[in-house]
Amino acid sequence: MCAVVGVYGSQNASKIAYYALFAMQHRGQESTGISAADGKSIKVVKHRGLVTDVFDEKSFEILEGECAIGHNRYSTAGKDSVLDAQPVFARYKLGEISVVHNGNLTNKNEVRNSLIERGAIFQTDMDTENIVHLIAKSRENHLIDRIKDMIRKIEGAYCLIIQSRSKMFVIRDRYGIRPLSIGRLEDGGYIVASETCAFDLVGAKFIRDVKPGELLIFENAKEPYSEMLFEPDYRPCAFEYIYFARPDSIIDGKNVYETRVKMGKILALEQPADVDLVIPVPDSGVAAALGFAEGVETRFEMGIVRNHYVGRTFIEPTQQIRDLKVKLKLSPIKYLIENRKIAIVDDSLVRGTTSRRIVGMLRSAGAKEVHMRIAAPEIKYPCRYGIDTPTKDELISNSKNPQEIADYIGADSVGFLSLDGLNEALGRERRYSLVSFDGNYFAGGCADSPECRSVD
Amino acid sequence: MCAVVGVYGSQNASKIAYYALFAMQHRGQESTGISAADGKSIKVVKHRGLVTDVFDEKSFEILEGECAIGHNRYSTAGKDSVLDAQPVFARYKLGEISVVHNGNLTNKNEVRNSLIERGAIFQTDMDTENIVHLIAKSRENHLIDRIKDMIRKIEGAYCLIIQSRSKMFVIRDRYGIRPLSIGRLEDGGYIVASETCAFDLVGAKFIRDVKPGELLIFENAKEPYSEMLFEPDYRPCAFEYIYFARPDSIIDGKNVYETRVKMGKILALEQPADVDLVIPVPDSGVAAALGFAEGVETRFEMGIVRNHYVGRTFIEPTQQIRDLKVKLKLSPIKYLIENRKIAIVDDSLVRGTTSRRIVGMLRSAGAKEVHMRIAAPEIKYPCRYGIDTPTKDELISNSKNPQEIADYIGADSVGFLSLDGLNEALGRERRYSLVSFDGNYFAGGCADSPECRSVD
Amino acid sequence: MCAVVGVYGSQNASKIAYYALFAMQHRGQESTGISAADGKSIKVVKHRGLVTDVFDEKSFEILEGECAIGHNRYSTAGKDSVLDAQPVFARYKLGEISVVHNGNLTNKNEVRNSLIERGAIFQTDMDTENIVHLIAKSRENHLIDRIKDMIRKIEGAYCLIIQSRSKMFVIRDRYGIRPLSIGRLEDGGYIVASETCAFDLVGAKFIRDVKPGELLIFENAKEPYSEMLFEPDYRPCAFEYIYFARPDSIIDGKNVYETRVKMGKILALEQPADVDLVIPVPDSGVAAALGFAEGVETRFEMGIVRNHYVGRTFIEPTQQIRDLKVKLKLSPIKYLIENRKIAIVDDSLVRGTTSRRIVGMLRSAGAKEVHMRIAAPEIKYPCRYGIDTPTKDELISNSKNPQEIADYIGADSVGFLSLDGLNEALGRERRYSLVSFDGNYFAGGCADSPECRSVD
Amino acid sequence: MCAVVGVYGSQNASKIAYYALFAMQHRGQESTGISAADGKSIKVVKHRGLVTDVFDEKSFEILEGECAIGHNRYSTAGKDSVLDAQPVFARYKLGEISVVHNGNLTNKNEVRNSLIERGAIFQTDMDTENIVHLIAKSRENHLIDRIKDMIRKIEGAYCLIIQSRSKMFVIRDRYGIRPLSIGRLEDGGYIVASETCAFDLVGAKFIRDVKPGELLIFENAKEPYSEMLFEPDYRPCAFEYIYFARPDSIIDGKNVYETRVKMGKILALEQPADVDLVIPVPDSGVAAALGFAEGVETRFEMGIVRNHYVGRTFIEPTQQIRDLKVKLKLSPIKYLIENRKIAIVDDSLVRGTTSRRIVGMLRSAGAKEVHMRIAAPEIKYPCRYGIDTPTKDELISNSKNPQEIADYIGADSVGFLSLDGLNEALGRERRYSLVSFDGNYFAGGCADSPECRSVD
Repeated sequence: MCAVVGVYGSQNASKIAYYALFAMQHRGQESTGISAADGKSIKVVKHRGLVTDVFDEKSFEILEGECAIGHNRYSTAGKDSVLDAQPVFARYKLGEISVVHNGNLTNKNEVRNSLIERGAIFQTDMDTENIVHLIAKSRENHLIDRIKDMIRKIEGAYCLIIQSRSKMFVIRDRYGIRPLSIGRLEDGGYIVASETCAFDLVGAKFIRDVKPGELLIFENAKEPYSEMLFEPDYRPCAFEYIYFARPDSIIDGKNVYETRVKMGKILALEQPADVDLVIPVPDSGVAAALGFAEGVETRFEMGIVRNHYVGRTFIEPTQQIRDLKVKLKLSPIKYLIENRKIAIVDDSLVRGTTSRRIVGMLRSAGAKEVHMRIAAPEIKYPCRYGIDTPTKDELISNSKNPQEIADYIGADSVGFLSLDGLNEALGRERRYSLVSFDGNYFAGGCADSPECRSVD
Repeated sequence: MCAVVGVYGSQNASKIAYYALFAMQHRGQESTGISAADGKSIKVVKHRGLVTDVFDEKSFEILEGECAIGHNRYSTAGKDSVLDAQPVFARYKLGEISVVHNGNLTNKNEVRNSLIERGAIFQTDMDTENIVHLIAKSRENHLIDRIKDMIRKIEGAYCLIIQSRSKMFVIRDRYGIRPLSIGRLEDGGYIVASETCAFDLVGAKFIRDVKPGELLIFENAKEPYSEMLFEPDYRPCAFEYIYFARPDSIIDGKNVYETRVKMGKILALEQPADVDLVIPVPDSGVAAALGFAEGVETRFEMGIVRNHYVGRTFIEPTQQIRDLKVKLKLSPIKYLIENRKIAIVDDSLVRGTTSRRIVGMLRSAGAKEVHMRIAAPEIKYPCRYGIDTPTKDELISNSKNPQEIADYIGADSVGFLSLDGLNEALGRERRYSLVSFDGNYFAGGCADSPECRSVD
Repeated sequence: MCAVVGVYGSQNASKIAYYALFAMQHRGQESTGISAADGKSIKVVKHRGLVTDVFDEKSFEILEGECAIGHNRYSTAGKDSVLDAQPVFARYKLGEISVVHNGNLTNKNEVRNSLIERGAIFQTDMDTENIVHLIAKSRENHLIDRIKDMIRKIEGAYCLIIQSRSKMFVIRDRYGIRPLSIGRLEDGGYIVASETCAFDLVGAKFIRDVKPGELLIFENAKEPYSEMLFEPDYRPCAFEYIYFARPDSIIDGKNVYETRVKMGKILALEQPADVDLVIPVPDSGVAAALGFAEGVETRFEMGIVRNHYVGRTFIEPTQQIRDLKVKLKLSPIKYLIENRKIAIVDDSLVRGTTSRRIVGMLRSAGAKEVHMRIAAPEIKYPCRYGIDTPTKDELISNSKNPQEIADYIGADSVGFLSLDGLNEALGRERRYSLVSFDGNYFAGGCADSPECRSVD
Repeated sequence: MCAVVGVYGSQNASKIAYYALFAMQHRGQESTGISAADGKSIKVVKHRGLVTDVFDEKSFEILEGECAIGHNRYSTAGKDSVLDAQPVFARYKLGEISVVHNGNLTNKNEVRNSLIERGAIFQTDMDTENIVHLIAKSRENHLIDRIKDMIRKIEGAYCLIIQSRSKMFVIRDRYGIRPLSIGRLEDGGYIVASETCAFDLVGAKFIRDVKPGELLIFENAKEPYSEMLFEPDYRPCAFEYIYFARPDSIIDGKNVYETRVKMGKILALEQPADVDLVIPVPDSGVAAALGFAEGVETRFEMGIVRNHYVGRTFIEPTQQIRDLKVKLKLSPIKYLIENRKIAIVDDSLVRGTTSRRIVGMLRSAGAKEVHMRIAAPEIKYPCRYGIDTPTKDELISNSKNPQEIADYIGADSVGFLSLDGLNEALGRERRYSLVSFDGNYFAGGCADSPECRSVD
């Protein structure tokens, strides 16, 4: 959960990176940064905050040059995170380097301990610092060889963009767990980004996805040099389709929105509900609810209104105002709900706390029956490949079956998409990273390793 | 376009007013204010900004007492508007008074000139200042008689809430143009608000709408005293249903969301379109698009994604990024749109500039045909009863017919709901304020009077 | 305690007003405002805050025209004062008007009650609103006659600048209690300001003081028209010299700094002290301390350092840190003070609380003796002519004699300048407003009237 | 130019560090930070900004533990310096460490290159990062031995405070160039700070200066362990006395204020001036001007008023307002200056630009003669030991003699204190770091090494 972008060969490199990060703000809201290289040096601007808050006109006077890389970082609560923004910049033996990273290294602590043993210091908790150290410590004489050295030492899920003073290197892990695509700008420059929605905003043309295990080198005006570092074993993350990516993005040739609609349709076959109305949890459940409604041949209605004015601070309410937190964000249309049997559709169910509030809200609005339908399988294991999931104990499906969950959240029934149904919706031609559902930690790490928790 | 609220007989009066204003933020974002009375004096907090920005814990230490009234003011561009926030507070002969107002006085200038002639000074442009002056200038000995005096002198659309140090007076004009409802709080207090969505948030129970022409007086713990000041001639504003009110509100017994769905359905009968997909302009066109899709028996899809991170300031883009303004807010799902015939549904069409950008966006996304459908009749006349509409010249339907509009915005066709269709959707049992469509200025004012333009 | 400025006939009128207000920021920090007239209309920008915070480039796009008037308002605690900023703007029978005022009307309540009786409403507590009403209510046909009408009805201390859409009127009360001077700008325009320090910053040349009782009318490019409204009875406020005005200003031909030095010298004659060092309370007591040191022929040292980084909010300290509040602002140079007999000189003594802390600080720093010397007489009465003084009960000299004060603040002795000494320092050629010292309310009002407390 | 503080053995360690940093804000305004250790881990809060802006109540919930170290960083223009705040925290082989540093390493680049050669990465430009690396790279098994290893490798001026999870180490270079003192808190804890003014604010008792070449180790409740790492060669920095330290601080037993007065007195003997008035540049020249006035037996007057309301942003002025920048900060008292011969005294003269403006201001105010007197010798060489001085070329005394400087700044004469006079004022018992005056780079570095420019 993070976004990366790299722009190469464009006179407006840092501004294009800025707009691309804006388009990918949903992937991380804690901090953001861009570094730019003009052949002579690398400059960085990064800070806690949203893209539109962190950068101003002055930033772009600093961020000169035809190559820029950028990053949005996902919020991890309770830390002073000024230092935990990316790109990570460093001076090292071969000059200057800047790195952004989306993913999670499963052998992070092992690598870190070995580096520390050899005298390295770590100023942050980020994987990315490991990566910079590995490059700096390599004995190779060329950056490209040092990068390869580094790649040999890391495991897990990663999309890396590395910038020297004049080149840009892009690497995607052999499983292609996190998405990464290449596009072409109107001025001839290249853009690499986590999601294709970034291309649409900046007017870039999608070329293709970066291949799993591929290394790309951008240098001069030429086409990027490509080399396969690994035999690919493609397993894109199912969660990107389920809820993380933006609906207009295309990952591995599949549109996210359409895939969600399919999940809803299959869910309807597997877990139908005899209801008067199908309602999405806005906005996350809309696409799946449309598919579900079609599947169960029942009216779809936007029966819950999402409030666009949710501010950051609220006055402490009086006791009279119950469930204020969810009511400030979501408002049910009583008129539709009263005395009706409702299917409420969401994209996934993690802890169950929000679902409980939403079901309660629908009950208060007079719903006769409330059937919760989830367009994803039961989440039983923490992801270690870049999606921030709570510990096993906090995952409601880890300890409760659907009936128990229904009791807990106050619904008449709860139904999940099956793992098979998910595979059906995603397409049988490919294996997927399904670790949260099946606990198959194929790329390293395990359900209990606390070390794997942090996410870049 | 504005929201009013009054709370009486509650220990948390000002906090309840605050939450009610938050629920009605969509009715006005420019400024907001609350005044509270504790029997001895009236205190005011008001400022430019959103509800969550203007009030803090300190505000509620100031706003003590069991009666509070509040207001959200709609943005009117290009003015220094610190002074134009409501409530308007004044000391006058009988003590202290505070007034909030939603509507528009059609004889504002006449009243103002006559007051100025008699030595009054006006510190703002707001109707509400007229109202306070008329009360202060009355020769009557009791506030209630002064209020009646004032009412006799004003014309137009108004929902007024007037607060003295111990009472609260509520008045709705004889046509009931702007909505106003009464609810009961859990602690026994009363709440009066422009929209019922405010009741849902604060846990109040809807009692009934304030009647057109009705005066209510809240005093002590008793039920409010009610008196009909006028023979009612009920004509609620059609625009509240079309786009202004929140979908979960109920006005005159009709749910706004459901009415919009009906408008879409009737529009489908009147202006069908042979398309592959029906897409709403989010979020304004969603309900109507659902009805339209049902009517034309075509798939409904959320084919345009609305961005939730739109910040206030943006770095000036490069020339490469075209139509940035609309693209920052709305993103089409190319995958759905490409090579498809699209019906795009919105709630109304005013100037045509945004529609033009949206149609252009769909064309760039590869739409084969784009048919714009508007779930309201052609807007040919400026409203003078509280909806901020541009001058006649700026209204595209004033000078262009649907075919010409289609040419202008680049659509294959444009279709509007007929006036009869609108009446059908709203229900035949009632006449409505349809001034923007039929130019019938039944409550005074006219299409050209500049004086009628400002809106409280 | 407030500043007024008026600029007429300059292309940069509002910017010059801005810099003049900046130079007079010491006269009021609560709120500030400017209105500008371009012959057709008057525009206002005003807000709570310092001059450098309230105005930005956008303000000056609004504030067009060759005439601008402005105001700084002194802080009066515990009020929501957004509305209490000046200028006060109003539309009235003859068009538009804007007024700024420095002073205090002693018959304010009487005037206000009579206006309210006739149907006026008051939206603020400011005297200035009275003034605007009086002008608006006058039956005269010309503004100048209405202004004269108004002047006949008010009593007390006032410096008024009134702006119509094309003219500017300046009036100083017959006693000339508050200062007001005229200067000429380099571009030929005129400037009128409370203090001459404003002229120095904007490069204006001092012409003369506005005469007590004088009315000036600025119209077209001509020299201002002058008329004496009253037989002058000149009694400038002694407090301006003692502590309120900036040391570089010249009032009634006398430089403020030099007058303070004289007060210190005379104080040395009247209340000498056998000490090792003379130290000022920085920065208020510096000039008087220099005079005192010369008088007692003793070394002057800046023995207390003033901290320039005093922020607005502080973390709650631990119990270990005593007298934090004064220590954050002032730091004694222990090295100088230890084992020495010290005379500490300040400009005035109001409540005694700060003096007590300063004496304690000097004791902690090891002073052998501490002799407090005050370069003003004992303040026994509240001023009603524009200086914000606490009530009689809070004035320490109202209930304690110098010996008792010395006991209270922990000093070895306390000595005040005599009233005669003050007159000597100010110059015998003139009578002064000495109301705080002698209780002679020559311009109306009295020590106990609460109505006279508020200050514009 | 920076401040360091360390607090050990106090329950309020981080709050005391906060107040100490506030007292030393004059030593650095760019960024500030505190780290605190509670035996188990180290937490850091640091950011660009002033002490009162960076820390809030929440900071102190994070900064728990009985040991805290802190830093204020001096502004170095034109950089994005978020990353350049101290303390520098790192995880390394022995656990966690945090370091603050005041001074300048003259072999910084050499050390850095050697570290980079061995695979280290540098994320900032700060010396402090070198220090952390040297400790982390040491092969020793105990932190204390690693620290000694590090000390053997660095040259230049440094005051270091190093924090592990349970101990605090303090080291001052053998020359004692930058000041560092130890005090005792009322609760029994210890405080180490750059200036004694920090002790006065937090109620600590001065114990003694840290000796040049001394290492102190704070551990448990015991007295700190002391060890001499070097034979001392004490040469405290003359600039601390001349202008950098706060007047109430005591360095090496000498009070800063008193030393400045002495410099002024000796300057009067060396460079007398036949004038009517002696005026300081406020506030920097006040103490020296008092000494100078005494020496030349001429009146001292605060003839220039310093403005306390200087905001951060100003509206672009009109052309009419000349020399606005200096006039916004300083206002001459014309009345005193007109037709008088003036000696204007400042603490030092670097580029001459501000002096030029001040002399111009005095001329405009009507001064008959203006004699500039500088209470320091001519600055001809850049300091490399922790004072931020411009390059040689920008130092006016590097290319101009006093007469030429007088011509340049428009003064009738300019006089500097001689090097011998400076030594006289400081006291003959000690040698001083006089590198800016005599170019004797005794602790390494040279006038031209760009590497030595940055200052921590």
